[in-house]
Amino acid sequence: MAKKKEKEAAKTEKKINKTNKKDVGEKLKVIPIGGVDGIGMNMTLLEHGEDLIAVDCGVAFPEDDMPGVDLVIPDFTYILRNSDNFRGLILTHGHEDHIGAVPYLLKQINVPVYGTPLTLGILRLKLAEHGIKNPDLREVFPGETVIFGDAFDVEFIKVNHSIPDAVALCITTPVGRVIHTGDFKIDLTPTKGDEPIDLYRLASLGHKGVKLLMADSTNAEREGYTPSESVVGNSFDKLFYGCEKRIVIATFSSNVHRIQQVIDAAVKYGRKVAVTGRSMLNVLKAATELGYMSVPEGTIIDPAEMRLYKDSQLTLLTTGSQGERMSGLYRMANEEHSLITLGANDIVVLSASAIPGNEKLIGNIVNGLYKLGVEVLTVDTEESVHVSGHACREELKLMHALTKPEFFIPLHGEYKHLCAHASLAREMGMKSKNIMIPENGKIIEVGKRGLAWGSTVPAEQVLVDGYGVGDVGATVLKDRLHMAEDGIIVVSATVDFTISEMTAGPEIITRGFVYAKENGQLLEELTDKAAELIRKAVYNGKPDMFALKEREKTALSSYIYSKTKKKPIVLPVFTENEIY
Amino acid sequence: MAKKKEKEAAKTEKKINKTNKKDVGEKLKVIPIGGVDGIGMNMTLLEHGEDLIAVDCGVAFPEDDMPGVDLVIPDFTYILRNSDNFRGLILTHGHEDHIGAVPYLLKQINVPVYGTPLTLGILRLKLAEHGIKNPDLREVFPGETVIFGDAFDVEFIKVNHSIPDAVALCITTPVGRVIHTGDFKIDLTPTKGDEPIDLYRLASLGHKGVKLLMADSTNAEREGYTPSESVVGNSFDKLFYGCEKRIVIATFSSNVHRIQQVIDAAVKYGRKVAVTGRSMLNVLKAATELGYMSVPEGTIIDPAEMRLYKDSQLTLLTTGSQGERMSGLYRMANEEHSLITLGANDIVVLSASAIPGNEKLIGNIVNGLYKLGVEVLTVDTEESVHVSGHACREELKLMHALTKPEFFIPLHGEYKHLCAHASLAREMGMKSKNIMIPENGKIIEVGKRGLAWGSTVPAEQVLVDGYGVGDVGATVLKDRLHMAEDGIIVVSATVDFTISEMTAGPEIITRGFVYAKENGQLLEELTDKAAELIRKAVYNGKPDMFALKEREKTALSSYIYSKTKKKPIVLPVFTENEIY
Repeated sequence: MAKKKEKEAAKTEKKINKTNKKDVGEKLKVIPIGGVDGIGMNMTLLEHGEDLIAVDCGVAFPEDDMPGVDLVIPDFTYILRNSDNFRGLILTHGHEDHIGAVPYLLKQINVPVYGTPLTLGILRLKLAEHGIKNPDLREVFPGETVIFGDAFDVEFIKVNHSIPDAVALCITTPVGRVIHTGDFKIDLTPTKGDEPIDLYRLASLGHKGVKLLMADSTNAEREGYTPSESVVGNSFDKLFYGCEKRIVIATFSSNVHRIQQVIDAAVKYGRKVAVTGRSMLNVLKAATELGYMSVPEGTIIDPAEMRLYKDSQLTLLTTGSQGERMSGLYRMANEEHSLITLGANDIVVLSASAIPGNEKLIGNIVNGLYKLGVEVLTVDTEESVHVSGHACREELKLMHALTKPEFFIPLHGEYKHLCAHASLAREMGMKSKNIMIPENGKIIEVGKRGLAWGSTVPAEQVLVDGYGVGDVGATVLKDRLHMAEDGIIVVSATVDFTISEMTAGPEIITRGFVYAKENGQLLEELTDKAAELIRKAVYNGKPDMFALKEREKTALSSYIYSKTKKKPIVLPVFTENEIY
Repeated sequence: MAKKKEKEAAKTEKKINKTNKKDVGEKLKVIPIGGVDGIGMNMTLLEHGEDLIAVDCGVAFPEDDMPGVDLVIPDFTYILRNSDNFRGLILTHGHEDHIGAVPYLLKQINVPVYGTPLTLGILRLKLAEHGIKNPDLREVFPGETVIFGDAFDVEFIKVNHSIPDAVALCITTPVGRVIHTGDFKIDLTPTKGDEPIDLYRLASLGHKGVKLLMADSTNAEREGYTPSESVVGNSFDKLFYGCEKRIVIATFSSNVHRIQQVIDAAVKYGRKVAVTGRSMLNVLKAATELGYMSVPEGTIIDPAEMRLYKDSQLTLLTTGSQGERMSGLYRMANEEHSLITLGANDIVVLSASAIPGNEKLIGNIVNGLYKLGVEVLTVDTEESVHVSGHACREELKLMHALTKPEFFIPLHGEYKHLCAHASLAREMGMKSKNIMIPENGKIIEVGKRGLAWGSTVPAEQVLVDGYGVGDVGATVLKDRLHMAEDGIIVVSATVDFTISEMTAGPEIITRGFVYAKENGQLLEELTDKAAELIRKAVYNGKPDMFALKEREKTALSSYIYSKTKKKPIVLPVFTENEIY
């Protein structure tokens, strides 16, 4: 392995020299399509001359003002426009916000996808669900280098994160080396089966010269170090020791090391492990098959078998640590789970922290559990039941100190996190002009001497809604929010211009409008008002139907508002008799 | 004052003896209508024999699954049913979750309302907005006692909180003394103009004997002490000293001491103070008039006058510390404020912490401010810019230690907080059987020897939606959420049974449905399908219209789902020609 690494390194050195010769002063373009600016879907493009590569291709989850939207994916316009130059997609690890949009990309363009075994293992399940056959997936390992066109050699470097097999990238380009950390933390005492981040390689690259660092900013506001994953194992050990209750642990299904630690504790203290939640079962299967987990035979049981054991012999692994509706834990907390009933003889451990926006959902679950008499452990009451997967400020400083970059672009985080990371770089002596806080779609041009803003490429959020990708426009969302607030009132009538009469209706139907049943009088008044307007309009022959509808809308809306202080959507549906 | 207190105390002692004599073993009923169970509107009823009183009458803000709802208020059914016995409403302090629903109560029943001057001052503004004339408001001061019927003497006791003039209550009843803390913290170095909580009085009541303690549980999960409000003043002083930038401070408008500290710092460092946000202006006016604030003349300027001063001479006080849409800070962060533009020469201080559920909204504002180049201080990066108004565990222990209650009911907080507070009481030696975790509407009967569950009274959440109070039913909310997710499709047609024909339509109109414009083909297919169904049905004379509508719904829904994976509400509007 060491020898292989050296060989690769030598090859890379040669490449730099080679490409340097070729370089005619053209700049490297760094194009963030997501992953900065608070939009969680990570995707960064790198382009030089006629070579374009992408790092990660994740999804984001919809905001509060996007009701009905399932997912948000990156804008692939720039890739599709330059598809002839597109050399490949490189994945840093298997989290949704880094790989979730790959199926949507592959549906539009066939391109080789590079990733470590577990990353591709998880991706394969996802592609199968989307019915994508024979994708071009290419397995890579830390220490290896892949060549993309004339411009890019990409070396994979082991890092720690809350999922195994995460890598950083050293991308050798004609303007110099670029280090892209992916998501990372520095864990020097990782769990059995994992290894520490390859600090030597990062230091050695720093020694040789790094032009640009792009690094994870998620925890850039947090002081100190993120504790080691093994801290959680110790905490589990303490919890399991002598415990007579059933132990229920909710965590992210992709946190394989965490799950392994639960299984290790269960095995040590003679407990069986039942698993619930589809994503948990999927990852467990993939990770075990690929050798990322070791589970003694007979440890895992079906949840239905739990009744055969005493509480002190049982551990239950479940999804729902983010309060997700319909997850295993959600159903248990709301007494809706078909198999599992929780009570005073259960301890539930939320081995996770809240992703911003989920605090309330998680709080509701915790309250529900307490009502059932369950003992609950969360990071709020017992810090060591979870550790973050992202580097805190001291780790970030170490990354900067080892790689000694000339230029810096903070990645992965909300805008405030990017700013905090930029200020950390300045604290370490980097000049402001050598730092750029990226924005989605804005090209950053990296030259030998400095960074500069380039032009802008399409990087809108693309909304996925059912089978529709990108179909949800602003009007649709506005209407949805409007109906959610105030409801809708449909006024239907049929008119016949041959006899200048309204021949049917007006009928008024409401949905989501508060005054429907409770206030029959209001509906009667509205019906009378609508009828009067229509009759007047058609009395003298055929009116402008569009204008009539607008008049009807205005008249009814203002009447409704005066009576109720609500503004439902008023939808006049006037049809003409066609026969006769 | 001291003499008055003694006199009152003596009177109270007498009362206990008197009422003790009268007591024929009847139990005291404690009835939480809100304020426990995660529902933020605080209201607790106490009933003994023919006397009923209420403590607080607050509102809650709607949850995510209540779109369009403005407010949630307590259920007044039990009070209205027992209106003959209802002796009065007692307010502990002027926060929305304690006084916000008073206008809705007074619209239904006229009853004296007791509170300290600032509490009533804020309430008066609110009642005026609701057009309630001549309410029976009765001012009380700490140390005073008010008699309610035969059963209750209520003494007001000074406590600290994030609004001035907060009081705890000592309610002397035939079964013994009940202490209701209201919201409180222990601040032994409060700001100028405030005084520490009356620990002597609490200790002295504890010495005489307290039957039941009901206490604030908001921070029952937090270890240690809540820092003093004066900590924030010191932090402001450090911030203002030598600062060249304009300083913008967002905080709760009701936090009068906080606002006073901003003004003090501004005056000390020669800055003017501009104020924006209607609620901020209202409270400032009420607090100044009542003597709770001291503002040197010429300190406050109109925001429009800011252009006359240098940044280093300006402070801006604003609402929006919870990320509220359309608040002052929200508009500034989104560059929508008509008067104020923020940039690199501004520091924004969020002098508040997030109320659960608001984290994301606040994060969005912070990100927006960073994008404008503004320097931002929040509790995440600079702890001392805010302190809580609620007691942490060590303060709660002190409250229990001083009052030495026989029984305990935790109040004010989510269920998990009530549980944490109950376990604190057990840690201090109280027996489990003497503690009851309350639930809304469940009567707790307090006897001389113990607590017991009584019957249940109506304590639903009453939703306020526009002018409608309690009109929003489950169906309306369900429809609103459904339309927000998937939109609505209206199918309109007119039929004429005299000729067995469809004479107009079908016309299909959608709102909030993703495939409307983007996929004209789907709409055409749906129109054809709808037409076919109707024609078939009317061909042989008059069909069952209800059944036809149901068939139409089912057919179109399943077709739409197969094509789009979405389930919009399908609303057939079929009318009959009435003329001919």
